[in-house]
Amino acid sequence: MDNVKSSVPQYIKIADSLINQIESGELEPGTRLPSERELSVLFDVNRLTLRRALSKLESQGLIIRKHGKGNFIAEPKIERQTKQLISFTNGIKRRGLAPGAKVINIEQRPVEAAIAKQLKVPVLTPVYHVLRQRMINQEPVMLEQLWAPVHCFPGLEKQDLNNRSVYEIMKSEYGITMTRAQRSLEPVIATKFEAEVLRIETGAPLLMERRLGFDQNSNCMEFSKDLYRGDRFRFIFADGDA
Amino acid sequence: MDNVKSSVPQYIKIADSLINQIESGELEPGTRLPSERELSVLFDVNRLTLRRALSKLESQGLIIRKHGKGNFIAEPKIERQTKQLISFTNGIKRRGLAPGAKVINIEQRPVEAAIAKQLKVPVLTPVYHVLRQRMINQEPVMLEQLWAPVHCFPGLEKQDLNNRSVYEIMKSEYGITMTRAQRSLEPVIATKFEAEVLRIETGAPLLMERRLGFDQNSNCMEFSKDLYRGDRFRFIFADGDA
Repeated sequence: MDNVKSSVPQYIKIADSLINQIESGELEPGTRLPSERELSVLFDVNRLTLRRALSKLESQGLIIRKHGKGNFIAEPKIERQTKQLISFTNGIKRRGLAPGAKVINIEQRPVEAAIAKQLKVPVLTPVYHVLRQRMINQEPVMLEQLWAPVHCFPGLEKQDLNNRSVYEIMKSEYGITMTRAQRSLEPVIATKFEAEVLRIETGAPLLMERRLGFDQNSNCMEFSKDLYRGDRFRFIFADGDA
Repeated sequence: MDNVKSSVPQYIKIADSLINQIESGELEPGTRLPSERELSVLFDVNRLTLRRALSKLESQGLIIRKHGKGNFIAEPKIERQTKQLISFTNGIKRRGLAPGAKVINIEQRPVEAAIAKQLKVPVLTPVYHVLRQRMINQEPVMLEQLWAPVHCFPGLEKQDLNNRSVYEIMKSEYGITMTRAQRSLEPVIATKFEAEVLRIETGAPLLMERRLGFDQNSNCMEFSKDLYRGDRFRFIFADGDA
């Protein structure tokens, strides 16, 4: 077994030991880590090995590297629950934080084939396509992309999409409540464009939520692809025997 | 609006158009895409722009780049459902595929502080730590990391962990059934070690599932951190009003 065991590299062991100290609360959010030089002496490894360990922590959103200032323990991630369908706006408000939105683009266009299939509308049906930057306390944390049929939400482009929840607008302005959804999660890495919108590095991990929302009568639907910053969010769920 | 609209770069529009053709089924799995040269002529963009578009598709696991052979449409991802607690082994078998496991390391050690907190055992309690490479039809697709108290599963290291589901071993050898779990999902990028085990590129997107499993009496628990290849898996869930 020892042979196999030694195949787990040193930087993974160092990273796991630091992860343990962060997740146990021993190292608190905001704490500045010792310098890379000090840490490499502490763990008795070279700088390259130490940097690889820190990269693992960074890729999991556990530390934040501030150029010229050092490495800091990150705030705990925001947990998005999956049991109920709660809009980003309400989910963030419930945590006592300030949600925000900025429209990057909204347009009316003939629906793409893949989206038509999801929304169960004929090909080329007019849909709204909305691209929004979502914020928490002014900081961009999510890139939202939404498609909804124009005949369900006529005039959506005139609504205050820079401030309000789309679900809330659908409800109050159109009497349509999204009551359930089919959702999926998959990891992707940020393209240059997404990184610029979210003010992170290209290649940083993002969680893509696809969501097909149904209204109370299953007449109107919306389809979304939301990209959440991996360093700020995790999705939680509980389950048991069905 | 036009000003803002033009801020969505060309490569994102090209990527979205290709994503649409893949997700609508127009481009089928296994199809070879035209060469990069041909595609750049087709979309009337330079090679750099085209490559950026293809990178987005690759990062979402929609195409596979084979060096010297070209770019191919990927098989659809495997969907892990979240409603029930189903072991990797059974989930894969249900799809008619062959699950596999290879132990990278198993050891008995005093539990780390963060894991003790999760498992609700005193610090330094002896636990098994298991690191396994998980396969589908011989191809590595998941890196599993599991902690379980030694007093619940004495002799676990002597079990056939190279072939069997841990949940199945817990049930048949120890009479302990994991009936429910608290789970979370977050995106991370592959370290060099993880990339080697999973035979992917360093920096590729992975989905980390944390899972705290409880047995029927909530006496014995297991804690896992599983890393799923983002190009092979998505997690699905459905919800409604609670």
